[in-house]
Amino acid sequence: MTTTGPGRPRKQQPSRPGATARDEILDAAAELFTTQGYANTSTRSIAEAVGIRQSSLYHHFGHKDDILEVLLAGTVAGGLAFARRVYSDSEGGSGDEGDGGPMAAAARLHAVALYDGTQLCTARWNLGVLYNLPEARTPRFHSFMADRNELRGLYQRLGAELPANGWASTSENGDLAFRLVESLVNLRADGLNTPDSPQQAADAGIVLCGLAASLAAIRARSAALVTRMG
Amino acid sequence: MTTTGPGRPRKQQPSRPGATARDEILDAAAELFTTQGYANTSTRSIAEAVGIRQSSLYHHFGHKDDILEVLLAGTVAGGLAFARRVYSDSEGGSGDEGDGGPMAAAARLHAVALYDGTQLCTARWNLGVLYNLPEARTPRFHSFMADRNELRGLYQRLGAELPANGWASTSENGDLAFRLVESLVNLRADGLNTPDSPQQAADAGIVLCGLAASLAAIRARSAALVTRMG
Repeated sequence: MTTTGPGRPRKQQPSRPGATARDEILDAAAELFTTQGYANTSTRSIAEAVGIRQSSLYHHFGHKDDILEVLLAGTVAGGLAFARRVYSDSEGGSGDEGDGGPMAAAARLHAVALYDGTQLCTARWNLGVLYNLPEARTPRFHSFMADRNELRGLYQRLGAELPANGWASTSENGDLAFRLVESLVNLRADGLNTPDSPQQAADAGIVLCGLAASLAAIRARSAALVTRMG
Repeated sequence: MTTTGPGRPRKQQPSRPGATARDEILDAAAELFTTQGYANTSTRSIAEAVGIRQSSLYHHFGHKDDILEVLLAGTVAGGLAFARRVYSDSEGGSGDEGDGGPMAAAARLHAVALYDGTQLCTARWNLGVLYNLPEARTPRFHSFMADRNELRGLYQRLGAELPANGWASTSENGDLAFRLVESLVNLRADGLNTPDSPQQAADAGIVLCGLAASLAAIRARSAALVTRMG
């Protein structure tokens, strides 16, 4: 039996993923924001899509932007948590990949890109299309942007551990990987992503670091990292 | 003296770039769409930003989506026209870069990416942030999407002229360059672009093709192409 949390009983049984009414509201909002647009979606239409009254929705979220905040945070939460673990692990030098060499460093960057890109491609809704909304760039969503900036910074620091790549400064290694992973959002919006797309983005990030010749070995170490820490 | 085209005389002198009232409307709309959001912007607010009556705006554009159509088309028009010229030139084998070798092919891809990326980074407003609007993905804007798809296809065909890069299929060469160039939109939205960003995106596209060692020579040929055909 699904619990509905606070608020009135729902008019119909849940038809959306999620154990709670809150999860169903988030799912309906994610669908409407990505398919009809954020500004074009009212809390009334979200409530209708869930099959609850608008007043019940307000028991869970006071404003529409509270819903957007949770959804945006969800697009980076998994990738950020994984990147933090991988980066902390590399600092301690523990773990069987922690030999400090360029191969280990490359595997860490590859694993973060692969994990993050997989999250973006397999989430039920392609919420990254909302990143460039003017609304998402306002102070109201500074918490999301701080998380996204921290994730970007971890890519940069992981990339800076790699040797010079021969064509750009090492500080760019990680940022180009970050950009390739975020480009999966557009690829998915265009209907062009495949199950291999996250791996390809991670691979491309490594090739840009000048390590194409070691890609097979880096992939294997990256897969081990994802298994161990994912 | 600026001509105002059809419609009533404007209440104030033009303060926006553009020789005509139509250009001023487009500039004001571009600013409002990118800073406040498309759905949040009314034709009334666009007219107010120009200093004309709403009825005068309707002499130029019947609907708000007619304005968006022109603005979206403008984001790809320059890059597409240049890519068409470069691709046609390569087919004929004319031109001093047209030696048919991988260096010439790489220079063509680099030049298209550099030209296209420069357009995205130097346009007065960062209109690429509107690409992922649900509205832009509707049949109403099929003409823009057809242009963008043609441009993407030209990147792909130019990339397919390059030799195998050792890590991905050659059909991916051009598409990764296209994605890196479009990622300039996000970089600009994040305030992180520099005057070198378009060159860096074009360079990265070439590195992903396995031609990092020839980058200096490819850049020189690319610059000559942009000068000759841009």
